[in-house]
Amino acid sequence: MPDIDKLLWPNSVAVVGASSDTHGLRGRIFEILRSYPFAGKIYPVSRSAAEVQGVKAYASVEALPEPVDLAVLIVPAAYVPAELERCGRVGVKAAVIPSSGFAEESEAGARLQREIVATARRYDMAVGGPNMEGFANIAAALCPTFSPAMDKSAGPLAPECALGRGQVSVVSQSGGLGFAFFDRARPRNLKFRYIVTTGNEAALEIADFVDYMLDEGETDVFLLLLEGVKTPEKFKRIAEKALRAGTPLIVRKIGQSAPGSRAVASHTAALAGSTAAYRAVFERYGMIEGRDFDEMLDIAMGFLACGDRLPAGRRVGICTASGGAGVWMADACAAAGLDVPVLDDATRAAIDVHLPAYASSQNPVDSTAQGVQKLGYARFAQLVARSLAVDGVVVVITARRSAFLEADLPKLKDLARETNKPVFMWTYTLPSERTVEILNEAGYPLFTRAQGCARTLRAMADYRVLRERWLRPIEVATPRVHERAKAGAMLAESDSRLCEYRARQLLAIYGVGADNMGELVHSAEEAAAAARAIGRPVALKVQSADIPHKTETGAVALNLAGAETVRAAYDRVLAAAKRHAPAARIDGVLVQPMAPPGREVILGVNRDPTWGPLLMIGLGGVLVEALGDVALAPVPVDHAAAAALITRLKGAQVFGAYRGLPPADTEALADLMVALSQFAADHEEDIAAIDLNPVIVHAQGHGASIVDALIVKRNSQTAERHGAAE
Amino acid sequence: MPDIDKLLWPNSVAVVGASSDTHGLRGRIFEILRSYPFAGKIYPVSRSAAEVQGVKAYASVEALPEPVDLAVLIVPAAYVPAELERCGRVGVKAAVIPSSGFAEESEAGARLQREIVATARRYDMAVGGPNMEGFANIAAALCPTFSPAMDKSAGPLAPECALGRGQVSVVSQSGGLGFAFFDRARPRNLKFRYIVTTGNEAALEIADFVDYMLDEGETDVFLLLLEGVKTPEKFKRIAEKALRAGTPLIVRKIGQSAPGSRAVASHTAALAGSTAAYRAVFERYGMIEGRDFDEMLDIAMGFLACGDRLPAGRRVGICTASGGAGVWMADACAAAGLDVPVLDDATRAAIDVHLPAYASSQNPVDSTAQGVQKLGYARFAQLVARSLAVDGVVVVITARRSAFLEADLPKLKDLARETNKPVFMWTYTLPSERTVEILNEAGYPLFTRAQGCARTLRAMADYRVLRERWLRPIEVATPRVHERAKAGAMLAESDSRLCEYRARQLLAIYGVGADNMGELVHSAEEAAAAARAIGRPVALKVQSADIPHKTETGAVALNLAGAETVRAAYDRVLAAAKRHAPAARIDGVLVQPMAPPGREVILGVNRDPTWGPLLMIGLGGVLVEALGDVALAPVPVDHAAAAALITRLKGAQVFGAYRGLPPADTEALADLMVALSQFAADHEEDIAAIDLNPVIVHAQGHGASIVDALIVKRNSQTAERHGAAE
Repeated sequence: MPDIDKLLWPNSVAVVGASSDTHGLRGRIFEILRSYPFAGKIYPVSRSAAEVQGVKAYASVEALPEPVDLAVLIVPAAYVPAELERCGRVGVKAAVIPSSGFAEESEAGARLQREIVATARRYDMAVGGPNMEGFANIAAALCPTFSPAMDKSAGPLAPECALGRGQVSVVSQSGGLGFAFFDRARPRNLKFRYIVTTGNEAALEIADFVDYMLDEGETDVFLLLLEGVKTPEKFKRIAEKALRAGTPLIVRKIGQSAPGSRAVASHTAALAGSTAAYRAVFERYGMIEGRDFDEMLDIAMGFLACGDRLPAGRRVGICTASGGAGVWMADACAAAGLDVPVLDDATRAAIDVHLPAYASSQNPVDSTAQGVQKLGYARFAQLVARSLAVDGVVVVITARRSAFLEADLPKLKDLARETNKPVFMWTYTLPSERTVEILNEAGYPLFTRAQGCARTLRAMADYRVLRERWLRPIEVATPRVHERAKAGAMLAESDSRLCEYRARQLLAIYGVGADNMGELVHSAEEAAAAARAIGRPVALKVQSADIPHKTETGAVALNLAGAETVRAAYDRVLAAAKRHAPAARIDGVLVQPMAPPGREVILGVNRDPTWGPLLMIGLGGVLVEALGDVALAPVPVDHAAAAALITRLKGAQVFGAYRGLPPADTEALADLMVALSQFAADHEEDIAAIDLNPVIVHAQGHGASIVDALIVKRNSQTAERHGAAE
Repeated sequence: MPDIDKLLWPNSVAVVGASSDTHGLRGRIFEILRSYPFAGKIYPVSRSAAEVQGVKAYASVEALPEPVDLAVLIVPAAYVPAELERCGRVGVKAAVIPSSGFAEESEAGARLQREIVATARRYDMAVGGPNMEGFANIAAALCPTFSPAMDKSAGPLAPECALGRGQVSVVSQSGGLGFAFFDRARPRNLKFRYIVTTGNEAALEIADFVDYMLDEGETDVFLLLLEGVKTPEKFKRIAEKALRAGTPLIVRKIGQSAPGSRAVASHTAALAGSTAAYRAVFERYGMIEGRDFDEMLDIAMGFLACGDRLPAGRRVGICTASGGAGVWMADACAAAGLDVPVLDDATRAAIDVHLPAYASSQNPVDSTAQGVQKLGYARFAQLVARSLAVDGVVVVITARRSAFLEADLPKLKDLARETNKPVFMWTYTLPSERTVEILNEAGYPLFTRAQGCARTLRAMADYRVLRERWLRPIEVATPRVHERAKAGAMLAESDSRLCEYRARQLLAIYGVGADNMGELVHSAEEAAAAARAIGRPVALKVQSADIPHKTETGAVALNLAGAETVRAAYDRVLAAAKRHAPAARIDGVLVQPMAPPGREVILGVNRDPTWGPLLMIGLGGVLVEALGDVALAPVPVDHAAAAALITRLKGAQVFGAYRGLPPADTEALADLMVALSQFAADHEEDIAAIDLNPVIVHAQGHGASIVDALIVKRNSQTAERHGAAE
């Protein structure tokens, strides 16, 4: 493994291609690099100039007085492989390559990129890029980048009065967006540690940098910007590592839309991938998805300010001096899925003594301008924070004037020391710089967006729950050796498309729908006998891999009772099947008990090209497709994850007491999902898709019935053809 | 009508209750008022002080050297009525009352508030408040308010280099939030005209101020913040007036959540009202709902910058020098419902000649840093803007450095002159002040939020469509004199709850479901005869206002064919009904043809306490309640509005070719909605609710069938009782 330490913390840096023309990128990168007090040596390397921006230049890395740790290669793409080779030869241990014109451009560029990879490997060099915007190590004042956001004139690298002691690192595939996080965070006084951009990720990718930083242990919150993920397994590993460490990963995947995904493909040669699959992976690992810069920075700010003081639940107390702004925040909290409960009587009584008659202590606690003028923000917030009815507090302020808060500072500090709940400040006016400083000094994050403030509290509460679930001792899953072997053998000898009876036999090995399997028969008499044995109304279904749409072709008969009826139906469905597909190979007719009524759901497993098999659940019925109400998770899932997935459906309330129905057996549904996901995980190499549609979930204690099932094998020409024929 | 002109444009102002203590609100309001160069006289009135903040004070308004135009009353609530009376007597024509302690506090306060109303009426005074935060007339430099956002130290009243010549006015029930709009807009260089806060709206309400400003014609965009609407008819009138004038109303209704609504009730004594109903009214009049300050200001900025240059459609061209930022913007556009089409070949060819090989002209046009360095932003934007494939352009820039844009300024100005499409700038880094100035000078709005930028373009495109629809010559609706009279008479003699046959007779007068009515019978023989006449399978339903849940009680039989079956079913349903409700008055049994299959919808009309009857459409079936996919509109609707309402359903795609079904007859559905809405509008005083559930929409050309119908009359004890019993 190459040494990222040499890349991010070099003792000396050479800029190969440095120029004196500060209008161009090659001049800018050298100018910016030199404008900060980096303690190490910086050498310009230029084939044409004897000096660059007043600094003596060297003709090549070989001519440098010492072998540098890091080379920045900003020369035309065609020259990059040779320069990198030269670096390797003289013992340079790391390189970043801002130059463009590689895999994102053409096949010729892709060849150059492959040369880079080979050279990096040969010399065990840590190589970032190409087609990136460099990086910044704020702690070392090292900024090899041409990003305008790092212009010296834009402001200092670190705030004078930072919020807390925690540090944020940005790791971004996009250079422009990566540095934009740092730039846009300036008014917030957050302390950054690294901004690393990764571009085409020929060698090092996002996960490598995050892994290094997690090991280093100096980054408290990550902001990640992805276009695609190069090595999914590596990414999942660092996601889990971060979750165990309690270091939140705040993430944005771009290229989620059709035009966005088209653009990703064209500019970094990455596959945009399915947004839903990415989201499922983020959710699994407690990664927090942000919708825009502001929201991601809000969430980062919340975590930085609160450290381990995460809210124990979703109940928020709101203090305000402006009635309208309190309402605004209450709306924002409700929209973020937080509760704003009426406060307990004791807390209200303690507050009421300080309020004018026209104020309100219910929650929002509207102390009015008069009330807050008398007592200050901190005391009201303290009274609310002490209430057992809330898990966090939002104080609504106008941060335009600082004098008032200045006077309140000692009490604000008291409160920050006393409470173990997050206390957030939201200002509805613009804050003055001094106000931000005062609040930061007292340890409070100041939000300017109500939505962002509420969303942050919610994200922190969710993160805590998910992490605690994750850290619980894991149920030791049975190794499933026997099941695995048996199902594997059966899969191997199956056709590419397994019709219902075959799919169900296979799934039953894992306990999926093992009751209620039905019987495969080959004559009308057998059908009648099977129906008699079942003892309640049955369905008959012709089984053939060549007839996927059984219902439409008449190859299914439902709700049959009595031997005569069953016999007649047997002949009818078989005749219909033969009429529809004379050449079809028919395996028999499946006789099944009719499922009692219940809530209809769809369960499935589909392979995402990046993330592999994902378990899907959706509400069944005619509207499911139109409303797209499905939830996904990587397989396997445990019971808790399955249960959480069910509640993520927008229409999840149908599973409760709904329209006169008793609550549904979601326990049984979750069990079914667990078993299905284990089957899919064990055989992921062999399976393209599983479709249980519908599954009927009965009332509590009565289980769930699979009504139809289909499995399509992977890597099979036949499967492809069948799939295409539908 | 009192003269709002005297309130907003007084020649002289008295502050009754002014104080020298600038820590208190009474001192602050006088301090702020005096800190701006208002051209008129400002008098402090104080019972105790001979001078206030160095200015000679007067003991009462009666002692002033002249009768002032405007009095600001900031004395304890109990003294306000007497002070206002005094003002009226000496000829003061307008007053604003910041003091609290009125209807929002107690019944005693409500009595004081009624006294204010009476006095205002008696002297024909324009009175704002009470419980408000004053106002600001920016053009007159008149700021009678204690809002910290208006502190002189916060910045100048008007920007030095404003974006365009247009002006924004804020009218807000909440004082804190109203002035926050102004304060938060400071970095945007928008020109404000008024910020008016209305508080409890004892006399003047939001609509009165908007009406005045529309007549004045100097406000180009309104920002409105509502907690509730005092006079719905007045509000609708100004909404229509603004739409005709082409002056957008950007609106936020707060108190949308349960805790928010609770807080509204407690702090301005307003009824929060139903969010869905407000939204329906906003949509009807093209009012643009914003989710937060930033979004509302973004939209205002877009309209101000573009004037009449609204996008003709939703197709956007994106120019960027950062690949990642281009993807980000493409995602934001797609999320806002905009199209980002691949550009036409001619446009691409014209662009390609300027691009390096690794850049892309597809859209986003990713010119890369090199490309834009060569040609500048303006030329690329110009090439894109000329394409017939787009209706608007977003240019993605980094506004951190201004030098580059400075050089591009002449070409930026050319483009602004040349194009008739909106061209927006979005910066992913923070802008420098100079950049904002440069862009404003050239006439471009600079967005810092991608979502806000995209949402603004979408809002402008929608506004244009809606307004053009509104301005079309209205179809002259038939006056429906006959229908109205006939239905009115029938309603008058009906019970409080009209069961299906009765409801259908009534609705049929308006043509609603006039075919397919079925026949009411009173014997098994009559039932069989009716079924024979219908000639296809029928349903029987017991008709009784006392049996609302027919299906559950067995009082319905479906899909009956043959005289014998029908006769037997008649006896069965009647017996079931009598068993279930022995005392029920039974009107007969309805014999109806079974409706052919189709998409199931629910149509209804419900009365909102503020906005009156609203037409509702929702997708039918078991999931409707869980997914809450319904759309509302005030009645009546015309055909275009009904069609638009259908497309607003999240699951609207079920009406197209869906799952093998042919497209549904949405024309017939819209006709049905129009007729239903006309009925509801004509009889709104008498009807509490109409419920057509389900309505089956058949394939195109085959109409729609009402399968069940219920009408509940208004203001009827019986109706209440029945409603509560369900």
